[in-house]
Amino acid sequence: MLIRAFIPAHITAFFVPIIKEEPQLSGSLGAGINLDKGTNVFLNVEETTLERHVHVAFNGEPVDRENARITYHVAEKLIPEDFIGEVEVWQYFDFPNGYGFGNSAGGALGTALTLAYKFGGTLLQAAKIAHEAEVLYKGGLGDVVAQLTGGIEIRLKEGGPGEAIVDNILCEGYRVLVIPLGRLTTKDVLSSDIMEEIGNKGREAIDKLLKDPRPETLMYEARRFAESIGLMDDELIEIAKSIDKSLTLPSSMIMLGRGLFALVREEEVEKVRGVVLDLDLPFDIVNIYWGKPRVGRWIGSE
Amino acid sequence: MLIRAFIPAHITAFFVPIIKEEPQLSGSLGAGINLDKGTNVFLNVEETTLERHVHVAFNGEPVDRENARITYHVAEKLIPEDFIGEVEVWQYFDFPNGYGFGNSAGGALGTALTLAYKFGGTLLQAAKIAHEAEVLYKGGLGDVVAQLTGGIEIRLKEGGPGEAIVDNILCEGYRVLVIPLGRLTTKDVLSSDIMEEIGNKGREAIDKLLKDPRPETLMYEARRFAESIGLMDDELIEIAKSIDKSLTLPSSMIMLGRGLFALVREEEVEKVRGVVLDLDLPFDIVNIYWGKPRVGRWIGSE
Repeated sequence: MLIRAFIPAHITAFFVPIIKEEPQLSGSLGAGINLDKGTNVFLNVEETTLERHVHVAFNGEPVDRENARITYHVAEKLIPEDFIGEVEVWQYFDFPNGYGFGNSAGGALGTALTLAYKFGGTLLQAAKIAHEAEVLYKGGLGDVVAQLTGGIEIRLKEGGPGEAIVDNILCEGYRVLVIPLGRLTTKDVLSSDIMEEIGNKGREAIDKLLKDPRPETLMYEARRFAESIGLMDDELIEIAKSIDKSLTLPSSMIMLGRGLFALVREEEVEKVRGVVLDLDLPFDIVNIYWGKPRVGRWIGSE
Repeated sequence: MLIRAFIPAHITAFFVPIIKEEPQLSGSLGAGINLDKGTNVFLNVEETTLERHVHVAFNGEPVDRENARITYHVAEKLIPEDFIGEVEVWQYFDFPNGYGFGNSAGGALGTALTLAYKFGGTLLQAAKIAHEAEVLYKGGLGDVVAQLTGGIEIRLKEGGPGEAIVDNILCEGYRVLVIPLGRLTTKDVLSSDIMEEIGNKGREAIDKLLKDPRPETLMYEARRFAESIGLMDDELIEIAKSIDKSLTLPSSMIMLGRGLFALVREEEVEKVRGVVLDLDLPFDIVNIYWGKPRVGRWIGSE
């Protein structure tokens, strides 16, 4: 029997990283958007073998322990100590790894939820382990709690699941344009010297968003944040300006990947699609995912 | 333009009431189930009048301020002070009021979310006001945070939205049989002398559920709780025993209403339906609602 979990992709608009000694108290403040594409994790467990093995594959390709530390950390914590058998974790990502779509957290949370479904444990017990793995191996700080919440989210208090406080903007009528152009690893930025500036600008953006919690504020603050911390290079700014001509709200940079995102009203979709096609850029236009992650037996009908 | 919110009905299996001076710190521990029927709230706002009026209707019938205190409390807090015009709040309940389905919280939360959607505010800002109204007017203690979470929920820490910690059991394959037989008002029980006993037995049930978070544990602990606090009268126990013969898991009492609920596997539905029909009892068999409350413009297609 396969067990499947779907975890939405999560793009961050702005953030304040908060790192403490205890992983469950570490996390981020900020805001972002959950998408209806993301990470699908399939779990297969065979109890017929005489040894204990954990296998992990990304997009169908086996990966070794060194390159899937986060997933192995989650697996070792959630598979019972006395379990004997084969555990296969198949992770499929709709967006490329390292481009700022929260794939690492999606894989961690999906692995945790499928394993808890199979071996026992609540949603929060599983999610805490995913968050811990993310923090320990520097996958991300706020993706797990954002993905648990869904929608357009605002992280009001940092921490792991049950510790963080995550709010939602109430709105509808928007789709999300994403333009993934390249990698920008969380690890590199989190250890760079712009961290203090990120913290200051991020807090300003959150304060403004909470005073006027609308998509308009989110996007204006996101762009101001992205430009002010200096991560948005000239090429990205040029592309953003081209796109903005056909949109009501400004586009901004995906934190942390080299890419752009924008909220697009239904009537703006065709025009902005034309602009991006003219620029010959990779893109997708997806819906916002307002629900919680899903986990359950997979029958294979989809 | 109508704005609509759907809030799931919420039935409590067992609970520990915790009442403090500050409403946002008051709430309950416990466990319960969210249903895919519940409360629909429609908001209509007319800005053409010269005076400010708030109208509330339950199931199409207008109710005065005295009989809709919770809703009026929410409305006064979320309609801007300088707003002039007519505000109509139409609440429709799938289950009868006072029978333990969280209608009061459903109405409060639905009103809060539609008003925040219209006039501004985040999900948590709105939900906090709904919780405050529930606590102040003794509608309920844990329904709002349970309904915000969805699914089969475990309240691990009491309080309002953003303060409470609410977990989920991971499972599927169950529907919920409900047998609503009569009223039992929260207000009466919360001021009775069995409160200490409820607290002790409720904590025991939560501890056991967290050690083995499965539907089985939920229902065995629910029944043990209901019988031990003495709220389950002889007639309810008789009915429960009749139903249990066709179910894998024991049924239990809805907290707080005079009624029963049970988790029913797909293959048990027909048999248990026959039993309840033979007993000539009012009943419904519904799905578990795993999502978050929904709010948005209502086009009228449903």
